[in-house]
Amino acid sequence: MKITTQERDAVYKTIFARRDVRSEFEPTEIPDDVLHRIITAAHHAPSVGFMQPWDFIVIKSNESKEKIKAGFDLAHAQSAAMFSDEKSQQYSRLKLEGIVEAPIGICVTCDRNKTGEIVIGRTINNEMDLYSSVCAVQNLWLAARAENVGLGWVSIIHNDVLRKTLNIPQHIEIIAYLCLGYVSHFKDKPELELLGWLPRRDIKDVLHFEQWHMSEPEKQKK
Amino acid sequence: MKITTQERDAVYKTIFARRDVRSEFEPTEIPDDVLHRIITAAHHAPSVGFMQPWDFIVIKSNESKEKIKAGFDLAHAQSAAMFSDEKSQQYSRLKLEGIVEAPIGICVTCDRNKTGEIVIGRTINNEMDLYSSVCAVQNLWLAARAENVGLGWVSIIHNDVLRKTLNIPQHIEIIAYLCLGYVSHFKDKPELELLGWLPRRDIKDVLHFEQWHMSEPEKQKK
Repeated sequence: MKITTQERDAVYKTIFARRDVRSEFEPTEIPDDVLHRIITAAHHAPSVGFMQPWDFIVIKSNESKEKIKAGFDLAHAQSAAMFSDEKSQQYSRLKLEGIVEAPIGICVTCDRNKTGEIVIGRTINNEMDLYSSVCAVQNLWLAARAENVGLGWVSIIHNDVLRKTLNIPQHIEIIAYLCLGYVSHFKDKPELELLGWLPRRDIKDVLHFEQWHMSEPEKQKK
Repeated sequence: MKITTQERDAVYKTIFARRDVRSEFEPTEIPDDVLHRIITAAHHAPSVGFMQPWDFIVIKSNESKEKIKAGFDLAHAQSAAMFSDEKSQQYSRLKLEGIVEAPIGICVTCDRNKTGEIVIGRTINNEMDLYSSVCAVQNLWLAARAENVGLGWVSIIHNDVLRKTLNIPQHIEIIAYLCLGYVSHFKDKPELELLGWLPRRDIKDVLHFEQWHMSEPEKQKK
């Protein structure tokens, strides 16, 4: 199946316009059909040995959100103490989640035993199934953006809080807790870039040719 | 920035048409501008604390590809021995890589110390930077598909082969080795699904509401 130039540009537009949303969630409900399309896109991520190790738990209950928010608050305070004094103050002022405001939370997991112990493609690199679930997160994120739905990944939380709140068995790995909702607006650039926390790396510095830290052969000739 | 319905559908088309390519690579070179767009999309993946921990090494040298292919062959033989007798024969017949045929290889890495020891969002869950690099892989994969370029992820290889061949320092984590090239065609469905290795899971079985393995509340009422 051919992707046209116009379709290609729509994919790039979505990739570049995707943001990690924390502050701009609105209470408008996400219709079921929109949510279903987003999850279906996640379910069509690549997976090692076609094991599809992921599950998606959709959370709308305020009681669960409040418990997860309390878990974030604890982990956030612990985290602030890890930064140097100056950075710690700046860190504490950042809004890093929208757990309660976002109408929907989605917990993405990985069942490492979903298709037995020996999995094609996981025989040598054992983390490949976890990475498959991460690919599902990224599909979900881009699908959400394509629906003009904002998404924020909450990583500042101890997994046992999610496990207890959502009744997730011990043998299931927790990969991500995501907040989803329509937004007042999407920022032009990543928030931490706008705030001057870190700059965008120059693409020349991340791109190497043939060997680690070698620049493009043609460019060397010039 | 608003994504239109037409643009949304282009994103879904690309997500559903993406495949893990092993057998259909053609020798046609990928133009530099196409490759540059694909890598730029990867570089705009989400990253924890905006650390952008990834690097991309583009491999065109046949000598490197042959070394990597030899590494695959060794790991593949080791892997075949892990399956039960019946599965092992089926496994050995599968073509699981296109390392030499694909005009371009890309190794994606993660520099866990790129922005210092303490990173926003990695304070509690230490694997978040690895997951950021995986998100970059998935962006890269979808961008390639949008350019009608096939991609296959080679996970059956020991990282030390890639490290030695590409001169990657010890402190850099290797996340993925990807093969890219134009293809004769994209399969309609994942190859392992077509071959009957595993079926596509029903979306109802991967989607839960409020708690692990709970079905949709509205549906329970019916």
